[in-house]
Formats: sequence, structure tokens, C-alpha cells
Amino acid sequence: MRMSPAPATLRWAICGAGNISNDFAISLNTLPKGENQILAVAGRELGKTKAFADKFLIPRVYTSYEDIAQDPDIDVVYVGTFNISHYEVTKLMLNHGKHVLCEKPITLLLRHTEELFQLARQKKRFLMEACWTRFFPACVKLRECVENKAYLGEIKLVTAQFGLNIIHLDRLRNLSLGGGSLMDLGIYCIQFAMMVYGNEMPEEILTSVVKSHEGVDLTLALILKYKGGRIAQLTSTIVARIKCEAAIYGDGQDNPALRGPNGRIEEASITLPHPFWSATDLITPAGREHFPLPAIEIPTVYPHGQGMRYEIDETRRCVLAGDIESPGFTHQDSITLAKIVDLILKKIDISYDFIYENGK
Amino acid sequence: MRMSPAPATLRWAICGAGNISNDFAISLNTLPKGENQILAVAGRELGKTKAFADKFLIPRVYTSYEDIAQDPDIDVVYVGTFNISHYEVTKLMLNHGKHVLCEKPITLLLRHTEELFQLARQKKRFLMEACWTRFFPACVKLRECVENKAYLGEIKLVTAQFGLNIIHLDRLRNLSLGGGSLMDLGIYCIQFAMMVYGNEMPEEILTSVVKSHEGVDLTLALILKYKGGRIAQLTSTIVARIKCEAAIYGDGQDNPALRGPNGRIEEASITLPHPFWSATDLITPAGREHFPLPAIEIPTVYPHGQGMRYEIDETRRCVLAGDIESPGFTHQDSITLAKIVDLILKKIDISYDFIYENGK
Repeated sequence: MRMSPAPATLRWAICGAGNISNDFAISLNTLPKGENQILAVAGRELGKTKAFADKFLIPRVYTSYEDIAQDPDIDVVYVGTFNISHYEVTKLMLNHGKHVLCEKPITLLLRHTEELFQLARQKKRFLMEACWTRFFPACVKLRECVENKAYLGEIKLVTAQFGLNIIHLDRLRNLSLGGGSLMDLGIYCIQFAMMVYGNEMPEEILTSVVKSHEGVDLTLALILKYKGGRIAQLTSTIVARIKCEAAIYGDGQDNPALRGPNGRIEEASITLPHPFWSATDLITPAGREHFPLPAIEIPTVYPHGQGMRYEIDETRRCVLAGDIESPGFTHQDSITLAKIVDLILKKIDISYDFIYENGK
Repeated sequence: MRMSPAPATLRWAICGAGNISNDFAISLNTLPKGENQILAVAGRELGKTKAFADKFLIPRVYTSYEDIAQDPDIDVVYVGTFNISHYEVTKLMLNHGKHVLCEKPITLLLRHTEELFQLARQKKRFLMEACWTRFFPACVKLRECVENKAYLGEIKLVTAQFGLNIIHLDRLRNLSLGGGSLMDLGIYCIQFAMMVYGNEMPEEILTSVVKSHEGVDLTLALILKYKGGRIAQLTSTIVARIKCEAAIYGDGQDNPALRGPNGRIEEASITLPHPFWSATDLITPAGREHFPLPAIEIPTVYPHGQGMRYEIDETRRCVLAGDIESPGFTHQDSITLAKIVDLILKKIDISYDFIYENGK
């Protein structure tokens, strides 16, 4: 689906003036001047939002997301609010004709995710879940290797683990704020397995969970089994900082370069080393390749936070081209991810349904 | 239980003249001269066995394991035969009053494993499953760290994966030869989790398996959940060479040294890097420590094969002290391992029972 092109300088608004929005603004400023502008920011606390606007020289400060939706000068909205409000803020923006890049998880419920992408298609507006990982050059290169069947032969195993010691954060401890390890960290691992295995639904999902007294998942161990005997072994936790690495292993068949001096097949693997969710390195049998991020003056909160620049750039490219979705992380990718998450939540007996009243 | 001390030079016999016995002999020769002697070897093929004896200057060559059992000059027997004959060879040796170090898996069936250890206690003879990993200095140091609660705080997650591209080996492809990834590689991962989690039985075992047409497990993904919310995520495969690493992750609580400059808890982990099953390196928050193996003149077949010296040394120590088991890998450790393996085999619908006729 195509629409009339947006102006050459894409005018952004940011919803939420927290840590992730901070890194988003830093990232955007690493891109060539004149391509993107942050025109407005809206947050829950006026003082904090004003300070944010001052820090990043943002001309318009709003106290409600509705103000952003109503501002005719805004082309595209970055939704960096708490997980629980992604759904309603994104819906509001689409209904007002804005393009949207929404932080993951795009919603907490499968039906909400499906509804938003349906709305985006109906309104002919760009919508993407901010799966920034996918647009890092190291990850783009990895995808090329997988598509070209370089190095791997037949893929047999995918592993990915993401764990941080962040149980002190209220937002993560609290089920009614969309907390737990799956929603914040686990989905990075799942999307990695999806990417390697062609965005299929797994044939089998096994889950083992450790829950807090408050009912959120603290540690989640997953096995996804795909047709043809392909396995993904994934782990997320918010109670321990672990080595956050993602790897793909193949049988190395039909690849003479992988035969060692003794004729044996060497490790046929591709790895995104720690921190794989924002990887600047790629390890293949050909060696380790480094993809440096631009230097920044203001430090980011999250490691490699300035790497959000790649998804911003992709959003700009799509919006200017009149595309309503990016091939890098499609509507269907988000829906498949939401379906897998939904199955996992059912298995571990966690529901975020109660958060949304009035049948929304 | 104590018995009269064995002679200062421990006189060994080796059953099986294959690759693993080759590395065993190389290992033994790295220990101080006069402590151990290989007095005899027995194998299925006379030519191969003679060549083995020539290579390692072994004076007595037998064509049957019975001959070893009958030789009164032999103190201790190393069983390096195929998996399927571990049970009967070990039983034969114990019944003739020999001490035994038997390759893993000590048997293929839980009831056989239980029977052998009962027999060893009855005969007052040393018996150990050759879990050589446990006696590597890097692993001994790791166990000390776990016992002293160094670095880790409360342990939340254990990971271990062991995969080689060895599907071309008949023995592994063939169910009636005790094939599959679990028996050869998976048990290394399970014993690692057991070691960290105090040799308890898991509360929950999840399995996902990829089987060959012949019915052996090619790839096996496991989640073991222990009481108190402790998880182990394990993988074995014989169809891809993977990074074979084992790691322990804790919450780092009560360990001020693990707090970074920003007050956050850094990675509280201990890792046995590739190849973890015969690790010569240990990575802790204090850095990477290397434990070199002795140089060898004849190359081993398996990586770090000369590291079997540590289990040989431990066997000698125990036999001389009159101990029938090693605290490094006890009878109960083997039985717990066999119980976990038995549960896994039931879950993945694999049985080795048919191999043993006449209800043995």
C-alpha cells in the first residue's frame, strides 16, 4: 500500500519522557541534520517533560498525548510510554492519522496487537513495533547470512538469553504495570528465534517459570520446537545479570570451508555476542566483525542506546516511501510474536487482561 | 567403609582398546612414574589390542574381559568399552574383587546402575563412574566457589550445552549400541546442573527432542527446575558442533564487590568455557584463570584427553585409602544422574531395555 510522500524533514513527537525516550532522542540526533526533527514531547509529569524538552531543544511541550494527536504538524509519533499504555496511545495516534513507532511490547494482549495493525492498514499509516535489534548492521548482516545459507548448512539450534538484575524497578515487579521478564526481555529472545526460523509458529512450546509473590515471571526458560526438528532454547530473567548472547548453529553440511584439517566439520555458527539485543559485533566462522556505533556527547541510559538510530532511519525511509510497514519487522512479525507470547502467558498462567477494563 | 591398603603402585587393566582407552593410557602416563602401571589390556579384536599394548608398553594382552577378572595381579580396572557392555564388564570385575573406574554412562538402565553400586558396597570395592570433568582443577575451583558462595549470591540459573557434529559415528546413530546425544553428551550437562544444585532431584523436567529415523535422540533440549526457583537449561546434540560452555548465574546479592560504579549489580557468574567438559579455564568476576594440562608426546583423540589424569589420581587416592567411593562423584551422584536420565528417557519415549535379554 502506498500513500503520498511525507515531507523530507520528518517531524516527530515523543510520548513519554523517561529513559527510553531519552535514548531515542539521543539516537535521532546522530542522524544527518534536516532528516528528522523532534517537534514535540508529551509526558505525565510537566516538570520532567519540560526538562526533557530543554535537554533536547524540543519546541513544543504537551501535557497530554491527545495534544500530540491533535497537532497537525506532526508526521510520526514515537511511543515510549509504559507497557500498559502502548495500546491506547498508539490507537489514539493512528486514529488521528499519525504514523507510529511503538516500543515493544506493542501491546500486552494479542487482540490489542491485532486490532492496532488492522487499524494501521485501515488508516494507511505506518506502524512498527520498535524491534530496534533487527536494524543494527550486525543483525542485518546476520539475516543476510541466514538467507544466503552462508556458513550454517541446515540450522539445528538457536539459543538466546537475556537477563538483567533489575528486580528493584517497580514497573517490572508489578503485574498491573505490565511487569515480568517475558514482556521486557524475553520477547527479544523470541523475535530472534522467529527471525532465524522464518517467522513460523513453533510446533511445540515448553515453559518453565519462576514467579514472584506478586505474580510476575522472574525467570522464564523456554524451548520452542519448529517443524523439521529445529529447536530454540531461550531464557529471560530479571533477577540476575547473565551473558546476553544469541547464536545459531547449523550442521555445516555442503560447506567445504567448515571442514577442519582432520576432515571434521567445525562449528557452523553465527553469534551476536553480548549485548545481543543491541549488538555491534557479529561472529561467524570467518571471524569477528565490528560495526561501530556513532560517538555521542550525551550518554545513553541503555547500552548502545544510540543504536535506535537504525530503526528511526528505517521508519523515515518507509514513511517517505509511503509504506505502511517495514520488511525488517512486519505487521505479521509483530502478530506472530504476540501469538507466541500469548501462548506462553497462558502456559505460565499469567494474564494482563485485568488491566484493561470496559472490554477494551 | 575401609579396607586393607592396596600396593603403592596401583596395577591397572584396561577393558577396550578404542579411542577413549587410548586417551586414558596417555593420561595415566602423565602421572608420576611408579604410582600407576597398566599391567594388562583386553579388547574384542586381537590385532587392535596388541597394537594398543605395543603403543603403551603394556605387558599382558588378553582376548576376553574374563581374563582380566581372573588375573590376581590386577588391582583396578578401567572400563572403556562400548556403552552397552559397561554393565556386564563392571559387574564381572566387581564379582572378582577388582576396583573399577567405568566410563559414563556407567549403565544404560537405572536398575543396572543401582545394582552395580549395591554390588560394590557388598564387595567393598571402589567404584566410580568416570565423570572426569569433576576432577579438572578448573572444575574443582568452581565447586569451591559454589560451596563458599563466592561471587554468586543466590544461584538463579545454570546453563550447559554440549554438541558435536558426530552423527557419522555408527555407535551414536544406533539405539542398540546405546546411541543418542543424551547418553554421550547430555549427561555432562546434567551432572553439571546436579553439581551446582547439590545433587537434588529436580521438581520438574521438560524435554524437547529431535529423533533420527533410527529412533535415537539427535538433539535434546532440557529444562530442569529445582525447588526454590532454580532453573537449569541444558542442550545436547550430535548433529551440530556448538559452543560447549557451562555457566552459573546468581543474583549477586550481599556481594559488594559486584556492584559497578553506578551501584548496579554486575554479572555474578562463573563459567567453564568451551570445552566445558574438560575445562582448563575458569571465568569468574575476578577474571579468567588458566589451569594448564601437562604436555604430551602422543596426541589424544579427544580434546584435553590427558585430563583423565585427574580422575585416575583420585581413583588411586581412594583405592589406597580403602575408600569405596570418591567424594568427587559419589555412588549417590551416579544414581541421581541415572534417575534423571531415566525420567528423561521415559519422557522422550526412548528405552534401552530391549538390548538386555533374559531380564538381566
